Amino acid sequence: MSHDRDFDFRSDNVACVAPEVLTALADAARGSVSSYGEDPITQRVEARLKELFDHELSLFTVATGTAANALALAQLTPGWGSVLCHKEAHIATDECGAPEFFSSGAKLAPLDGAHGKITAEAVAAHLARDTRGVHHSQPMAISISQSTEAGTCYTPDEVAAIGAAGARHGVRFHMDGARFANALASLRCSPAEVTWQAGVDAMSFGVTKNGAMAAEAIIFFDTALAEDFGYRRKRAGHLFSKGRFAAAQFDAQLTGGLWLRLAAHANAMASRVAQGLAAIPGVALLHPVEANELFVLMPDAVIDGLEKAGFLFYRWPTEEGPCIRLVTAFDTEPAHADGLVAAIRAAA
Amino acid sequence: MSHDRDFDFRSDNVACVAPEVLTALADAARGSVSSYGEDPITQRVEARLKELFDHELSLFTVATGTAANALALAQLTPGWGSVLCHKEAHIATDECGAPEFFSSGAKLAPLDGAHGKITAEAVAAHLARDTRGVHHSQPMAISISQSTEAGTCYTPDEVAAIGAAGARHGVRFHMDGARFANALASLRCSPAEVTWQAGVDAMSFGVTKNGAMAAEAIIFFDTALAEDFGYRRKRAGHLFSKGRFAAAQFDAQLTGGLWLRLAAHANAMASRVAQGLAAIPGVALLHPVEANELFVLMPDAVIDGLEKAGFLFYRWPTEEGPCIRLVTAFDTEPAHADGLVAAIRAAA
Amino acid sequence: MSHDRDFDFRSDNVACVAPEVLTALADAARGSVSSYGEDPITQRVEARLKELFDHELSLFTVATGTAANALALAQLTPGWGSVLCHKEAHIATDECGAPEFFSSGAKLAPLDGAHGKITAEAVAAHLARDTRGVHHSQPMAISISQSTEAGTCYTPDEVAAIGAAGARHGVRFHMDGARFANALASLRCSPAEVTWQAGVDAMSFGVTKNGAMAAEAIIFFDTALAEDFGYRRKRAGHLFSKGRFAAAQFDAQLTGGLWLRLAAHANAMASRVAQGLAAIPGVALLHPVEANELFVLMPDAVIDGLEKAGFLFYRWPTEEGPCIRLVTAFDTEPAHADGLVAAIRAAA
Amino acid sequence: MSHDRDFDFRSDNVACVAPEVLTALADAARGSVSSYGEDPITQRVEARLKELFDHELSLFTVATGTAANALALAQLTPGWGSVLCHKEAHIATDECGAPEFFSSGAKLAPLDGAHGKITAEAVAAHLARDTRGVHHSQPMAISISQSTEAGTCYTPDEVAAIGAAGARHGVRFHMDGARFANALASLRCSPAEVTWQAGVDAMSFGVTKNGAMAAEAIIFFDTALAEDFGYRRKRAGHLFSKGRFAAAQFDAQLTGGLWLRLAAHANAMASRVAQGLAAIPGVALLHPVEANELFVLMPDAVIDGLEKAGFLFYRWPTEEGPCIRLVTAFDTEPAHADGLVAAIRAAA
Repeated sequence: MSHDRDFDFRSDNVACVAPEVLTALADAARGSVSSYGEDPITQRVEARLKELFDHELSLFTVATGTAANALALAQLTPGWGSVLCHKEAHIATDECGAPEFFSSGAKLAPLDGAHGKITAEAVAAHLARDTRGVHHSQPMAISISQSTEAGTCYTPDEVAAIGAAGARHGVRFHMDGARFANALASLRCSPAEVTWQAGVDAMSFGVTKNGAMAAEAIIFFDTALAEDFGYRRKRAGHLFSKGRFAAAQFDAQLTGGLWLRLAAHANAMASRVAQGLAAIPGVALLHPVEANELFVLMPDAVIDGLEKAGFLFYRWPTEEGPCIRLVTAFDTEPAHADGLVAAIRAAA
Repeated sequence: MSHDRDFDFRSDNVACVAPEVLTALADAARGSVSSYGEDPITQRVEARLKELFDHELSLFTVATGTAANALALAQLTPGWGSVLCHKEAHIATDECGAPEFFSSGAKLAPLDGAHGKITAEAVAAHLARDTRGVHHSQPMAISISQSTEAGTCYTPDEVAAIGAAGARHGVRFHMDGARFANALASLRCSPAEVTWQAGVDAMSFGVTKNGAMAAEAIIFFDTALAEDFGYRRKRAGHLFSKGRFAAAQFDAQLTGGLWLRLAAHANAMASRVAQGLAAIPGVALLHPVEANELFVLMPDAVIDGLEKAGFLFYRWPTEEGPCIRLVTAFDTEPAHADGLVAAIRAAA
Repeated sequence: MSHDRDFDFRSDNVACVAPEVLTALADAARGSVSSYGEDPITQRVEARLKELFDHELSLFTVATGTAANALALAQLTPGWGSVLCHKEAHIATDECGAPEFFSSGAKLAPLDGAHGKITAEAVAAHLARDTRGVHHSQPMAISISQSTEAGTCYTPDEVAAIGAAGARHGVRFHMDGARFANALASLRCSPAEVTWQAGVDAMSFGVTKNGAMAAEAIIFFDTALAEDFGYRRKRAGHLFSKGRFAAAQFDAQLTGGLWLRLAAHANAMASRVAQGLAAIPGVALLHPVEANELFVLMPDAVIDGLEKAGFLFYRWPTEEGPCIRLVTAFDTEPAHADGLVAAIRAAA
Repeated sequence: MSHDRDFDFRSDNVACVAPEVLTALADAARGSVSSYGEDPITQRVEARLKELFDHELSLFTVATGTAANALALAQLTPGWGSVLCHKEAHIATDECGAPEFFSSGAKLAPLDGAHGKITAEAVAAHLARDTRGVHHSQPMAISISQSTEAGTCYTPDEVAAIGAAGARHGVRFHMDGARFANALASLRCSPAEVTWQAGVDAMSFGVTKNGAMAAEAIIFFDTALAEDFGYRRKRAGHLFSKGRFAAAQFDAQLTGGLWLRLAAHANAMASRVAQGLAAIPGVALLHPVEANELFVLMPDAVIDGLEKAGFLFYRWPTEEGPCIRLVTAFDTEPAHADGLVAAIRAAA
């Protein structure tokens, strides 16, 4: 269904596309280039990412965030491995078993943790348990989302602590960066600090939610991991023939810091809503608002009122009571945010 | 690598993008729409395809032709099945085992056949062999490419005969239509005649090679097959979040017959080259030129000369001697075709 | 390692083999018979099981209980399915991801429940949650162990309630009967009552722990499920060539009620230990003793003492404190049980 | 079906069990031992095999030859690999896709070759073709059967030449030794000469067809390959709980050279039949008789006559004309062989 942009807070994937991305696609649509990622744009994006992350890396574009996560994890763990993650991680709840499928049956080991974040302590405790022995899936990787499904961000110190806890047991470290730009815009740290310097071996890096059309990638900081990954991607049907167009979207995002500007705007819109809600009695935030998502506890009657007013969002049942999820995007305007706050105030 | 369009005959996936497709993408990049294929453009494309094929059908867009083929086949056969196909089929030689992967290990049963086509007789003979018994993979599906890897097309009668041979054994029928537009433009039959009316249960339908960026799909004519296919696609990482953009490319192609116009042009360019070559001694066509690909037998010295002249193409070793593959596309210009012929004449 | 039988309470798989089973194997080792399960012994066992269960069924012998469980579940759920089970089920904790592997990545959905048993309420609550939607694994099957990993048994009513809760959502029902004989000997109900009459579609039926060498099987009460299962078993490497010998072990067990007699003895030995422990202060049972396993809470010092006295068993850490697992078998003698109790009394 | 032993030449898996094996099983059925292969018999067998092969090795028992082959190959190749083998290899024609299943979709690359044997030349030619590139499955392993499906044996030189051809391309080498004893008894070379000294990395080693009940194993000569293989076996359901009984069968076979004695007898019976057939006009051997299988070309009328006379065997259609397969076993008696020859003579 098509909707008024001002009422739609369902997800950042209902948003449209940044004009710069469209322009880049049109620019890329000229002349002949080698297919299957052997084109100059893909090569330029890889070079830019090396500079951005200040590290050697290997880049593999794919069609979706689910593909990026599942293929990356399949590269990090054999089928008899397990992957530690937050119990509400996207890989655990929203990918219809893609990580299990691509890894030939690896298990996810869901951990608890406040505000969508696992802790180094929980990781260490899990890994300390003796599960060596042929009857049990073996911990092989950790996966965290940055920003998280709860709209929060791991600090570089938190990431590094988790990475260190895993490294002590020889466990690999993956980051789901479907909203990495939002995290970075929020944390104001360098990309390196919060990834390879903190022990991350591989990450899913997506800009689809940040104003692209379909631009997701896997980045290996440990490039040895990338050696035969091309085969894995190909046989998953994720090697684009006209690779330049996936690359062009990244290229546009990385030009002049567009990606961080777009993400900072989305984050600012979420903060604006959060500030507006602070003054409304009976309404409370479930999690700190650190990126572009808000989880708002409110009475069912208020939720119903908001829906009747034409707003779109997801109900997000919690143990703490009725709750909704609101997501802002690069194209959410201040007026949209204000309109949403006003509607909640009116309904409350 | 980026190249002069006029010298590049490597593939139709080195080609650029039709302006109409770019415009459609820009038009689609407005406002909020439901994600994951619940958008109005996807719905419109599905409706248009029903009209085009004059049949009920289910549409699933995916990222690549490999994904379309492998996911479709995995829906048609369990892991203990086998898929009859031409020994040079894309699924057999160019997908790095994707059909085997997605189907949990089904086998391809490669058949011989002139000019890239399998015959109903070969299918019937294979199926007549008694392979019932638990030790053997069971024939479950047939897959043909339309147009074929040899640049030829199956006539509606040929397709129907293969379909009938399979149906007698309860075997499903898949068509790889990565170049379906080229076939249709060549055959001048209706889409229905050469698909479901001829027994095709499922097809891969791609327009990427025909002037789109990345627009591939699976179509189920037997919609019962589509029932749980959404799960299969999702866990393969092939459910686009911003589904409208895959759909918009199909929409542009299907508007005003663009797809057939583009394909007819590509075919015409291949014919133009074929006609030009007819007059050159020492040069011969390996296969009839019925779509947008030419396989040209020529002495190694001529091939070397063509390369030195700056032309790009693939060497395609055959038992008949040295050979090259030449592919034309929607954006191949008559002057490009003529330049190629002239260069071959000069080298010969 | 080889050990004195009287000190070894590690598992019923450290036990030896009943003489009747040995005799049956020797008897079967005569003359020529068709291989791959087409032999008269396999046919006789299937007929006997039909009589025993008073129902049509299909029998498939396999090498291990893990194979029986994982292959059965793979037949009940596609890769995008989930299987509800107790969080301490063997399939969840002790099979190194075999169910995930054979099912191409189906998820286990672990449920809580006292004494190793899930409840119909927990099943109903899980299934009532709306997980329809392509992003989520779909509940496709329930699996319970009979007897459970906690040494308890589901009553026929409990099984039927779970079966009914699943049936309301079209979910299949599997029983892990690696210790089915122990359960039956304890429940004193008919095999039918606690299986197909209670909604069980498929069960793993094992007698290895009950005095056989390696005799495990999958039984489908819904024989439609068995239609193509032979292929699944074959390609898993679980179709014995000399099938008569797997069958002969079942044959011996089913002759004259041997299987129930052996299981009743193992259960009685567990009860004897339980009764002995009742009088020892500081020692408590974690679960009711309803089959042939005991979980005994005792101070670490007592555990250490028991080990020093030469007894073999597994430490089984619980939230309730230090605990050990003790397993009796068909060949545990009353004197062994009494010796164990005496040793615990001495250590306490 | 149960049959007279003297008329049954269908396979060596219709044969019974050697008394020594039965005795060993009865002897093993005493007392408590650690389960899951941690028992003294398994350890003794591994030690004996090291001595026999004069090399370090790792042993993993499994239930069937199909399991041994498929699990070994899955350890040698990722899903994007291909395995070179004879086009009539058991792995290619008789395992219902087990190698493809366990390897997550690796391809078999069938090679031609006289008398069931591939040649080093064919291997070298296949590997010399440039298939590097992400679109193609990558050659990762070679698998040969010793003795072959045609009842012939590779000489140590032939094996070494194949091994060397593979090693030049970094390709692993597997031997299917379901009838390894027959090969060794025929070749009269040392086990080492024809395995690791000839480049074999891993082998399937079976004695089921040679008078055991169900005793198959994977042996890794490159023990680095075995490092995590225990997990692969476990999740395939091929880790026997009462591992001592699989081991005991090997133990009996390896005691006093029983395995070679039994195999030599089976081979001698095949030779006896071959010699008898030499004098019968209209009957010819399709392959040299080097182990315990004969492939005999004969007119359909003779085949019919033999069937009418009550003999059991498989028809084995060939391009050379009507053919039957005859298999002798450890328990085929000279009188059985002579009776078979007499019956063929009578029918001819």
